[in-house]
Amino acid sequence: MLAARSEVQIDNDEVRVTEWRLAPGSATGHHTHGMDYVIVPVVAGEMTIVAPGGERSKAQLSAGKSYFRKAGVQHDVLNETSTEIVFLEIELKA
Amino acid sequence: MLAARSEVQIDNDEVRVTEWRLAPGSATGHHTHGMDYVIVPVVAGEMTIVAPGGERSKAQLSAGKSYFRKAGVQHDVLNETSTEIVFLEIELKA
Repeated sequence: MLAARSEVQIDNDEVRVTEWRLAPGSATGHHTHGMDYVIVPVVAGEMTIVAPGGERSKAQLSAGKSYFRKAGVQHDVLNETSTEIVFLEIELKA
Repeated sequence: MLAARSEVQIDNDEVRVTEWRLAPGSATGHHTHGMDYVIVPVVAGEMTIVAPGGERSKAQLSAGKSYFRKAGVQHDVLNETSTEIVFLEIELKA
Protein backbone atom coordinates (compact mmCIF):
# COMPACT_ATOMS: atom_id res chain seq x y z
CA MET A 1 0.00 0.00 0.00
CA LEU A 2 1.17 3.49 -0.85
CA ALA A 3 1.12 5.98 2.02
CA ALA A 4 -1.35 8.85 1.99
CA ARG A 5 0.29 12.28 1.90
CA SER A 6 -0.53 14.92 4.49
CA GLU A 7 0.28 18.61 4.87
CA VAL A 8 -0.54 20.72 7.92
CA GLN A 9 -2.16 24.00 6.84
CA ILE A 10 -3.00 25.49 10.27
CA ASP A 11 -1.75 24.50 13.74
CA ASN A 12 -2.43 26.72 16.74
CA ASP A 13 -3.85 26.44 20.28
CA GLU A 14 -7.39 25.78 19.02
CA VAL A 15 -7.25 23.84 15.83
CA ARG A 16 -5.07 21.81 13.50
CA VAL A 17 -6.03 21.60 9.84
CA THR A 18 -4.38 18.88 7.75
CA GLU A 19 -4.81 18.31 4.03
CA TRP A 20 -4.86 14.61 3.15
CA ARG A 21 -4.25 13.29 -0.36
CA LEU A 22 -4.82 9.61 -1.09
CA ALA A 23 -3.65 8.57 -4.53
CA PRO A 24 -5.36 5.50 -6.03
CA GLY A 25 -4.11 2.46 -4.13
CA SER A 26 -2.96 4.40 -1.07
CA ALA A 27 -4.01 4.28 2.60
CA THR A 28 -3.58 6.33 5.75
CA GLY A 29 -2.68 3.27 7.84
CA HIS A 30 -4.53 2.31 10.99
CA HIS A 31 -4.87 5.23 13.39
CA THR A 32 -6.89 6.46 16.37
CA HIS A 33 -8.33 9.98 16.39
CA GLY A 34 -7.20 11.75 19.56
CA MET A 35 -9.44 14.79 19.04
CA ASP A 36 -12.96 15.48 17.85
CA TYR A 37 -12.74 16.42 14.17
CA VAL A 38 -14.50 17.73 11.09
CA ILE A 39 -13.81 16.38 7.60
CA VAL A 40 -14.26 18.64 4.56
CA PRO A 41 -13.97 16.76 1.25
CA VAL A 42 -12.28 18.90 -1.42
CA VAL A 43 -13.27 16.62 -4.29
CA ALA A 44 -15.95 13.98 -4.73
CA GLY A 45 -14.83 10.43 -4.13
CA GLU A 46 -15.27 7.17 -2.29
CA MET A 47 -13.26 6.04 0.72
CA THR A 48 -12.92 2.47 1.93
CA ILE A 49 -12.94 2.36 5.73
CA VAL A 50 -11.41 -0.61 7.54
CA ALA A 51 -12.37 -1.04 11.21
CA PRO A 52 -9.89 -2.48 13.75
CA GLY A 53 -11.57 -5.91 13.41
CA GLY A 54 -11.13 -5.84 9.63
CA GLU A 55 -14.72 -4.97 8.72
CA ARG A 56 -14.84 -2.90 5.53
CA SER A 57 -17.30 -0.17 4.55
CA LYS A 58 -17.55 2.48 1.86
CA ALA A 59 -18.11 6.20 2.46
CA GLN A 60 -19.10 8.66 -0.25
CA LEU A 61 -17.42 12.06 -0.25
CA SER A 62 -19.02 15.12 -1.80
CA ALA A 63 -16.95 18.29 -2.31
CA GLY A 64 -17.69 20.81 0.43
CA LYS A 65 -20.06 18.53 2.39
CA SER A 66 -18.60 18.30 5.89
CA TYR A 67 -19.16 15.84 8.72
CA PHE A 68 -18.20 15.65 12.40
CA ARG A 69 -16.77 12.75 14.41
CA LYS A 70 -15.87 12.37 18.09
CA ALA A 71 -12.40 11.45 19.35
CA GLY A 72 -11.72 7.74 19.71
CA VAL A 73 -12.55 6.67 16.17
CA GLN A 74 -10.12 3.94 15.02
CA HIS A 75 -9.76 2.95 11.38
CA ASP A 76 -7.67 2.68 8.26
CA VAL A 77 -8.76 4.73 5.23
CA LEU A 78 -8.03 3.39 1.74
CA ASN A 79 -8.50 4.68 -1.77
CA GLU A 80 -9.57 1.74 -3.92
CA THR A 81 -10.82 3.99 -6.73
CA SER A 82 -9.00 5.32 -9.79
CA THR A 83 -9.09 9.00 -8.78
CA GLU A 84 -7.30 10.92 -6.05
CA ILE A 85 -9.12 11.54 -2.74
CA VAL A 86 -8.51 14.96 -1.16
CA PHE A 87 -9.99 16.18 2.11
CA LEU A 88 -9.19 18.46 5.03
CA GLU A 89 -9.18 17.14 8.58
CA ILE A 90 -9.97 19.87 11.13
CA GLU A 91 -9.04 18.69 14.63
CA LEU A 92 -10.60 20.60 17.52
CA LYS A 93 -8.14 21.03 20.38
CA ALA A 94 -10.27 22.93 22.85
CA MET B 1 -26.93 43.65 -3.74
CA LEU B 2 -28.15 40.08 -3.71
CA ALA B 3 -27.83 38.28 -0.39
CA ALA B 4 -25.35 35.46 0.01
CA ARG B 5 -26.95 32.11 0.83
CA SER B 6 -25.90 30.10 3.86
CA GLU B 7 -26.63 26.61 5.11
CA VAL B 8 -25.54 25.21 8.47
CA GLN B 9 -23.98 21.76 8.02
CA ILE B 10 -22.84 21.07 11.62
CA ASP B 11 -23.80 22.81 14.87
CA ASN B 12 -22.83 21.32 18.22
CA ASP B 13 -21.12 22.38 21.48
CA GLU B 14 -17.73 22.70 19.82
CA VAL B 15 -18.14 23.89 16.29
CA ARG B 16 -20.53 25.36 13.76
CA VAL B 17 -19.90 24.74 10.07
CA THR B 18 -21.74 26.94 7.58
CA GLU B 19 -21.63 26.66 3.80
CA TRP B 20 -21.68 30.07 2.12
CA ARG B 21 -22.61 30.59 -1.52
CA LEU B 22 -22.14 33.99 -3.10
CA ALA B 23 -23.60 34.26 -6.57
CA PRO B 24 -22.05 36.88 -8.86
CA GLY B 25 -23.16 40.29 -7.58
CA SER B 26 -24.04 39.10 -4.08
CA ALA B 27 -22.69 40.01 -0.64
CA THR B 28 -22.82 38.73 2.92
CA GLY B 29 -23.56 42.17 4.34
CA HIS B 30 -21.45 43.81 7.05
CA HIS B 31 -20.88 41.49 9.98
CA THR B 32 -18.61 40.94 12.98
CA HIS B 33 -17.14 37.51 13.66
CA GLY B 34 -17.98 36.50 17.24
CA MET B 35 -15.77 33.41 17.22
CA ASP B 36 -12.37 32.41 15.90
CA TYR B 37 -12.88 30.70 12.56
CA VAL B 38 -11.38 28.71 9.71
CA ILE B 39 -12.38 29.25 6.08
CA VAL B 40 -12.16 26.37 3.60
CA PRO B 41 -12.76 27.46 -0.01
CA VAL B 42 -14.64 24.80 -1.98
CA VAL B 43 -13.93 26.37 -5.36
CA ALA B 44 -11.31 28.81 -6.60
CA GLY B 45 -12.43 32.42 -6.71
CA GLU B 46 -11.85 36.00 -5.69
CA MET B 47 -13.62 37.80 -2.85
CA THR B 48 -13.88 41.53 -2.44
CA ILE B 49 -13.53 42.49 1.22
CA VAL B 50 -14.94 45.81 2.44
CA ALA B 51 -13.67 47.04 5.82
CA PRO B 52 -15.94 49.04 8.18
CA GLY B 53 -14.33 52.28 6.94
CA GLY B 54 -15.07 51.38 3.33
CA GLU B 55 -11.57 50.32 2.34
CA ARG B 56 -11.70 47.56 -0.30
CA SER B 57 -9.32 44.68 -0.85
CA LYS B 58 -9.27 41.48 -2.89
CA ALA B 59 -8.63 37.99 -1.54
CA GLN B 60 -7.84 34.96 -3.70
CA LEU B 61 -9.49 31.66 -2.79
CA SER B 62 -7.99 28.34 -3.77
CA ALA B 63 -10.06 25.15 -3.38
CA GLY B 64 -9.08 23.31 -0.21
CA LYS B 65 -6.56 25.92 0.98
CA SER B 66 -7.75 26.93 4.45
CA TYR B 67 -6.96 29.97 6.59
CA PHE B 68 -7.61 30.98 10.21
CA ARG B 69 -8.88 34.27 11.64
CA LYS B 70 -9.48 35.49 15.20
CA ALA B 71 -12.83 36.68 16.51
CA GLY B 72 -13.52 40.38 16.10
CA VAL B 73 -13.00 40.64 12.34
CA GLN B 74 -15.52 43.08 10.82
CA HIS B 75 -16.20 43.21 7.11
CA ASP B 76 -18.56 42.80 4.20
CA VAL B 77 -17.72 40.13 1.62
CA LEU B 78 -18.75 40.67 -2.02
CA ASN B 79 -18.57 38.61 -5.17
CA GLU B 80 -17.70 40.98 -8.00
CA THR B 81 -16.68 38.16 -10.33
CA SER B 82 -18.74 36.20 -12.87
CA THR B 83 -18.52 32.82 -11.06
CA GLU B 84 -20.07 31.59 -7.84
CA ILE B 85 -17.96 31.70 -4.65
CA VAL B 86 -18.42 28.72 -2.30
CA PHE B 87 -16.66 28.26 1.02
CA LEU B 88 -17.18 26.68 4.43
CA GLU B 89 -16.90 28.77 7.59
CA ILE B 90 -15.88 26.68 10.60
CA GLU B 91 -16.53 28.62 13.82
CA LEU B 92 -14.71 27.38 16.93
CA LYS B 93 -16.91 27.63 20.01
CA ALA B 94 -14.55 26.28 22.65
